[in-house]
Amino acid sequence: MIAVDWGTSNLRAYRLDRHGEVRDQVASANGITKVAPGGFPAALLDAAGPWLRDGERHVLLCGMVGSRQGWVEAPYLPCPASPADIAAALIEVPFAEAQVKLIPGLSARDSAGTPEVMRGEETKLIGLMAPLNGDGLVCMPGSHTKWARLAGGRIAGFATYFTGEAFAALRDATILGRMMTGAAIDPEGFRRGVARSGDAGHLLHHLFGVRTLGLFGELTEAASAGFLSGLLIGHEVRAAMPPAGTVRLAGDAALIGLYAAAITQCGGTAQMPALDAAAAGLALIGEQAQWN
Amino acid sequence: MIAVDWGTSNLRAYRLDRHGEVRDQVASANGITKVAPGGFPAALLDAAGPWLRDGERHVLLCGMVGSRQGWVEAPYLPCPASPADIAAALIEVPFAEAQVKLIPGLSARDSAGTPEVMRGEETKLIGLMAPLNGDGLVCMPGSHTKWARLAGGRIAGFATYFTGEAFAALRDATILGRMMTGAAIDPEGFRRGVARSGDAGHLLHHLFGVRTLGLFGELTEAASAGFLSGLLIGHEVRAAMPPAGTVRLAGDAALIGLYAAAITQCGGTAQMPALDAAAAGLALIGEQAQWN
Repeated sequence: MIAVDWGTSNLRAYRLDRHGEVRDQVASANGITKVAPGGFPAALLDAAGPWLRDGERHVLLCGMVGSRQGWVEAPYLPCPASPADIAAALIEVPFAEAQVKLIPGLSARDSAGTPEVMRGEETKLIGLMAPLNGDGLVCMPGSHTKWARLAGGRIAGFATYFTGEAFAALRDATILGRMMTGAAIDPEGFRRGVARSGDAGHLLHHLFGVRTLGLFGELTEAASAGFLSGLLIGHEVRAAMPPAGTVRLAGDAALIGLYAAAITQCGGTAQMPALDAAAAGLALIGEQAQWN
Repeated sequence: MIAVDWGTSNLRAYRLDRHGEVRDQVASANGITKVAPGGFPAALLDAAGPWLRDGERHVLLCGMVGSRQGWVEAPYLPCPASPADIAAALIEVPFAEAQVKLIPGLSARDSAGTPEVMRGEETKLIGLMAPLNGDGLVCMPGSHTKWARLAGGRIAGFATYFTGEAFAALRDATILGRMMTGAAIDPEGFRRGVARSGDAGHLLHHLFGVRTLGLFGELTEAASAGFLSGLLIGHEVRAAMPPAGTVRLAGDAALIGLYAAAITQCGGTAQMPALDAAAAGLALIGEQAQWN
């Protein structure tokens, strides 16, 4: 089987054997924003042509390729969802050279009824389910960080935090960024920001302190981007993690390092699997799918 | 006496009689950022020349004119501070045509020791003190909104919220702004945002909901800037106001209207004085100052 994690900016294709092991893989910057309308079949041939010519007849896709801007729009499947639920909801994609199926994204509602969505992360969650024995709390850092609960072998629900994009906007488009030299995250500044997130007072008050600490010479320019990052991630972790919780992290290595530091500092335990969660999830869902 | 509220972007000058009543006033866009280095004496003559030529010999300044980018930098006076404390800490400014004094800004520390600063707002607070009988909670909306406690005729302390600037950055520099048509604050969207701020979950989670509500057709593009504004101001009010609190508002009329709506919706009482708080505060401090 060919499996493709096809996101906004990047594409990673795998050739899996019948046991779901990765035999070969390719990565490219051909994310969906770089594919012209009607260009998805050619882009897939470009990524996986040799494997198709070698006889592979099943292709499973996940990620933003199933969004309105992608190849075919797949409606969101509501949580809770098991691997079998997801495998039963795959979308068929017209393609001459092989049978192509698409994994739908998931939706959820928070306790107040506000909707939540993910596309691509559901596949990583399925990949993480086996090593977690079907239960646990998973954090997937990014511009829009996802916190998901796995329970009884299903994705029970999830919540998204706007932390990464809020950090970038506050650094790049407010007075706070004017006192930041460079974009590097200073570890000591980050640690102080995480500590600050535990003080009394709302985030909107804590943000102004980034400026006043600088004005009073109590925070250096080199440390202040790290302080802002730690402040925001600390607020997120304290809100999303139960006291002394255990959190399984998956995603970008640099971001995972920051989240692991914040989780530990806030009294939790961070676990970082060595697993390629997307490949594992694609293999598991592909195994349960109905192929011709 | 001549009194000048001299801020970053604007200047307002008053001619006060011996009872502190405003006899004449002028406003201009000559905020301190428009004054060239060394140009402050000429800018003051420009604003108040006729009154000086008419015999006024005392000039009292407040606002960002006392910052590092202003005429003379005045060190912050720590809270708590009474009108007499402030009058005793005025800074003398060299000027040939009259005696010029500058009102220092105030500093404070929150419960965790993080510094706070204001410049100009202290004068408005003094102006509001008399109608409040020296006690109360005052909110001064702006890019960096100040909440101050008056107690026993002193400014007891204050906290700053980064709400206004955070709103602008989130609207202008994140994906949330892409679904906002126009900058107008839709009242129904604002009301829904304030309601949302009372739901379970952190602001960083609520922010992502602005996007998903739009994706699900549950929030219009026309209402979403108002929703974001209400969400942020609602979070601020719930954090800064005690339950069923009474809040005296001062500052920009449009912003005050939004804050009054949010305060009422969150169970508080908003009061909007008709008073020119800056003129009243300048008169009160000028009365207690030592003039030649």
